Amino acid sequence: MPRYRLTIEYDGTPFVGWQIQRDGVSVQGALEAAIGKLTGETPGLRGAGRTDAGVHARGQVAHVDLEKEWPPDTLRDGLNFYLKSRPVVVLAAAVAPAGFDARFSATGRHYLYRILARRAPPALARNRVWWIPRTIDFDAMRDAASVLVGRHDFTTFRAAQCQAKSPVRTLDRLDVSHDGNEIRITASARSFLHHQVRSMVGSLTRVGDGKWTSDDLRAALEARDRTACGPVAPAAGLYLMAVDYNERPASDELRGGAL
Amino acid sequence: MPRYRLTIEYDGTPFVGWQIQRDGVSVQGALEAAIGKLTGETPGLRGAGRTDAGVHARGQVAHVDLEKEWPPDTLRDGLNFYLKSRPVVVLAAAVAPAGFDARFSATGRHYLYRILARRAPPALARNRVWWIPRTIDFDAMRDAASVLVGRHDFTTFRAAQCQAKSPVRTLDRLDVSHDGNEIRITASARSFLHHQVRSMVGSLTRVGDGKWTSDDLRAALEARDRTACGPVAPAAGLYLMAVDYNERPASDELRGGAL
Repeated sequence: MPRYRLTIEYDGTPFVGWQIQRDGVSVQGALEAAIGKLTGETPGLRGAGRTDAGVHARGQVAHVDLEKEWPPDTLRDGLNFYLKSRPVVVLAAAVAPAGFDARFSATGRHYLYRILARRAPPALARNRVWWIPRTIDFDAMRDAASVLVGRHDFTTFRAAQCQAKSPVRTLDRLDVSHDGNEIRITASARSFLHHQVRSMVGSLTRVGDGKWTSDDLRAALEARDRTACGPVAPAAGLYLMAVDYNERPASDELRGGAL
Repeated sequence: MPRYRLTIEYDGTPFVGWQIQRDGVSVQGALEAAIGKLTGETPGLRGAGRTDAGVHARGQVAHVDLEKEWPPDTLRDGLNFYLKSRPVVVLAAAVAPAGFDARFSATGRHYLYRILARRAPPALARNRVWWIPRTIDFDAMRDAASVLVGRHDFTTFRAAQCQAKSPVRTLDRLDVSHDGNEIRITASARSFLHHQVRSMVGSLTRVGDGKWTSDDLRAALEARDRTACGPVAPAAGLYLMAVDYNERPASDELRGGAL
């Protein structure tokens, strides 16, 4: 039974999140429905990251086992045909290497967080950014971000409902850049705790607002206490950009453009 | 009676275009309704460019005359309050200099056109790009674009319903760049003919598809004949990015980010 790796883009706005819920439409549910219509099979789909309601993806990865063999491009195009009514598309399909598991084989996850810092609300980027209606100190945020990079106990930045066994993670990268009044924060790690990126971003905005120094951010990290965290940034600004595996897909479908 | 200059961003998707029409909601109509609610006055609003249905703006400029004097920031925030239900926002308001006219004082207009060239349809950039489901030769498009730059009779690239007296325009810039599989075409001129940018972009994709050479594009220009034009690119990929005046607004609201 061949296993397929799917690379997936979605606008998280209308979904209850990646994972199937009792009520509402999930990304996983929309994909499984399309797989059922195309193949007549009803396999489960496993994603690399369970994004929350409203969180977007530019490069989510999932795997699915099908009885029948499919030319990968036919599988991709057929699924996209049945997904037409939803803002979710399969960017690439490939036969997965032996032993591949979208969640457990992942060696890196890359997130982007977008903040729009200006007085006027977003018109074009509605549901795509966190709107902060004031100017914010980009440089202070960029400098403070380095406090969080490395191997740490991230209990402060972890949702109460997080199911991970350990709060220790290695944050490989937390970069802050800006283009006009849009701030872009990129975070990379092998894996993240639940709400970790949004908790780190919310805390960084405290620094950007001049309420916290880098030392205050370090103290929050070292407190290992959820109540020391800043606000949790809203879902709409977050994008799962890419998932790394030891074997990288060769497709250029995964690069750049069209957020 | 003070005249105000408004800088405006909108998602063109739900609108019948900039200009008030008998049926449907226009951007101008939405703004005039907000002005009426805020000020109790019913002045007309004149825009720098009459964008078509589905065309977006990141920096449309309009002027309006009000009986009462308003602190510009109060005017901006008040209008945005009444615009909440529509994807249109006032980025900046300013008292216009003497003799200012949003349309006739404009010395430059800058458009962006976005193409997504990949097999899968857009999920995140739905209604924001022209989706072309195949690879396209960026370099050929970039090289050919230079054929159109300069002072020319653009009859070939002009809609039948264009009301301009002369088909001669000076195209200052037509740049093609790409980020992954997104192509970005920027066009700058003092003014454009109706459908000129979309007609030039559509013709450039003929070159990107290998159907036309640069010489074919030059021949189309020199034909001065609408039937020599390639396809007219769809509205959804087009953005009015900025309008220049001899006095530039000082606000950094106009720069970068959050398309």
